[in-house]
Amino acid sequence: MITLYDIPSKAPGNVWSPNTIKTRMALQHKSLPFKTVWLEYPDIGPTLKGIGAEATSKWEDGSPWYTLPVIQDSTTGKVVADSWKIALYLEDTYADKPTLFPFGVRAPVEFFEAYFTETTIRPGMRIFMSETCYRLNPTSEAFFRRTREAIYKLKIEELAPPGPERDAIWAAVKGGFDKFAPKYASNGDGSLPFFYGETISYADIVVASYLLWVKIVLGPENPEWKEVESWNGGRWVKLIELLKDYKIVDA
Amino acid sequence: MITLYDIPSKAPGNVWSPNTIKTRMALQHKSLPFKTVWLEYPDIGPTLKGIGAEATSKWEDGSPWYTLPVIQDSTTGKVVADSWKIALYLEDTYADKPTLFPFGVRAPVEFFEAYFTETTIRPGMRIFMSETCYRLNPTSEAFFRRTREAIYKLKIEELAPPGPERDAIWAAVKGGFDKFAPKYASNGDGSLPFFYGETISYADIVVASYLLWVKIVLGPENPEWKEVESWNGGRWVKLIELLKDYKIVDA
Repeated sequence: MITLYDIPSKAPGNVWSPNTIKTRMALQHKSLPFKTVWLEYPDIGPTLKGIGAEATSKWEDGSPWYTLPVIQDSTTGKVVADSWKIALYLEDTYADKPTLFPFGVRAPVEFFEAYFTETTIRPGMRIFMSETCYRLNPTSEAFFRRTREAIYKLKIEELAPPGPERDAIWAAVKGGFDKFAPKYASNGDGSLPFFYGETISYADIVVASYLLWVKIVLGPENPEWKEVESWNGGRWVKLIELLKDYKIVDA
Repeated sequence: MITLYDIPSKAPGNVWSPNTIKTRMALQHKSLPFKTVWLEYPDIGPTLKGIGAEATSKWEDGSPWYTLPVIQDSTTGKVVADSWKIALYLEDTYADKPTLFPFGVRAPVEFFEAYFTETTIRPGMRIFMSETCYRLNPTSEAFFRRTREAIYKLKIEELAPPGPERDAIWAAVKGGFDKFAPKYASNGDGSLPFFYGETISYADIVVASYLLWVKIVLGPENPEWKEVESWNGGRWVKLIELLKDYKIVDA
């Protein structure tokens, strides 16, 4: 059995993190059963250290920064941190299960993930980070607030309050999606939904995971989310719909 | 027979344009014979208009901007402008020839080309554009200088003169390649040279074409080019070496 470590929230179903959603979808794509251990932010470091997980980054003071997702696989005894490394681990370890990386190649997806997040997600980070903060349980919220305010050198409330600055951030996000969407068109007749046309891969899981993050932290009825649903001929909401068998959350 | 319209230069073999190199390599990959018609810049617009080519862009004043490469295919009677559209045309029209787009998908390569040029080439444009200008024949040089100085609002000589500003541009280019190179590593054991690992595709032609552009306009013995050869474990010079059967130029 695989144990997935994830971060709870006030959102229905707890799940919100784009990176742990990637792993949830990857596990379901490969038909691997798993159970979730929920960790509030202050418990992540001590727990992961205890199970021998690798820190994926460093805080500004040089101390190890433990992040989720992490999986612990009782079949192999392995503990793996970082959504990308987990996807590669699952593909290698469970090679007989449905593939996350069609055609036996991974770099195309790795380039795609980097390009997608840089183009469409990074421009919106001040909105997405503040909305995430508002969705966390109090223990996690305090930890998240303290650490992110140190990084941004701004109060969470100052990151993206309603007004022209937030509108400009949204316009940049929309600009990213507008630039990104037409590049799918060279597959087939242009209507195919996935990175590999008709073939689902981890690339599509990445896109859907970020979209679900935005949907969850804004809330499904939020006007900004409704905007996303209308972008690029509804491509993004269609993608989520096509991946709805991956039961992440009800949001 | 296919006719390729290209722009000559003072460089050995004439060829220098990254976009026409892409088409040269694509034609050779598909084993399609072709002949070159050389057009100096001022002759491009009138000639292309004459053969019914599409303008690929617009000048600031709204007039059509005709660019090369353009191919004219006597077998089908088609005239196609724009390196990406030409690659798709060749793939569709000569489907029985070796494929430019393995696995029947094109979007992965389209995303890759955009990400590669944004990450590694665009940061160096002020260097590459000025060095290109210095390599053109006088008629083209005057046209190129006038139009590019209007775009940049700077003299060609002011774009990237030696000194700290040029060093910073180079550092940004190197930073782009440093960020880009490790993403190939998830294919196989990390040593595979191509976007699709062991399988050559149009993605690799794109990378090689931009590298050859830089090599040609700087000159193969130029210290800045020699730097590129040393970057990322020699990955880029190895790629050019692997594609040397595509006879573009002797540079």
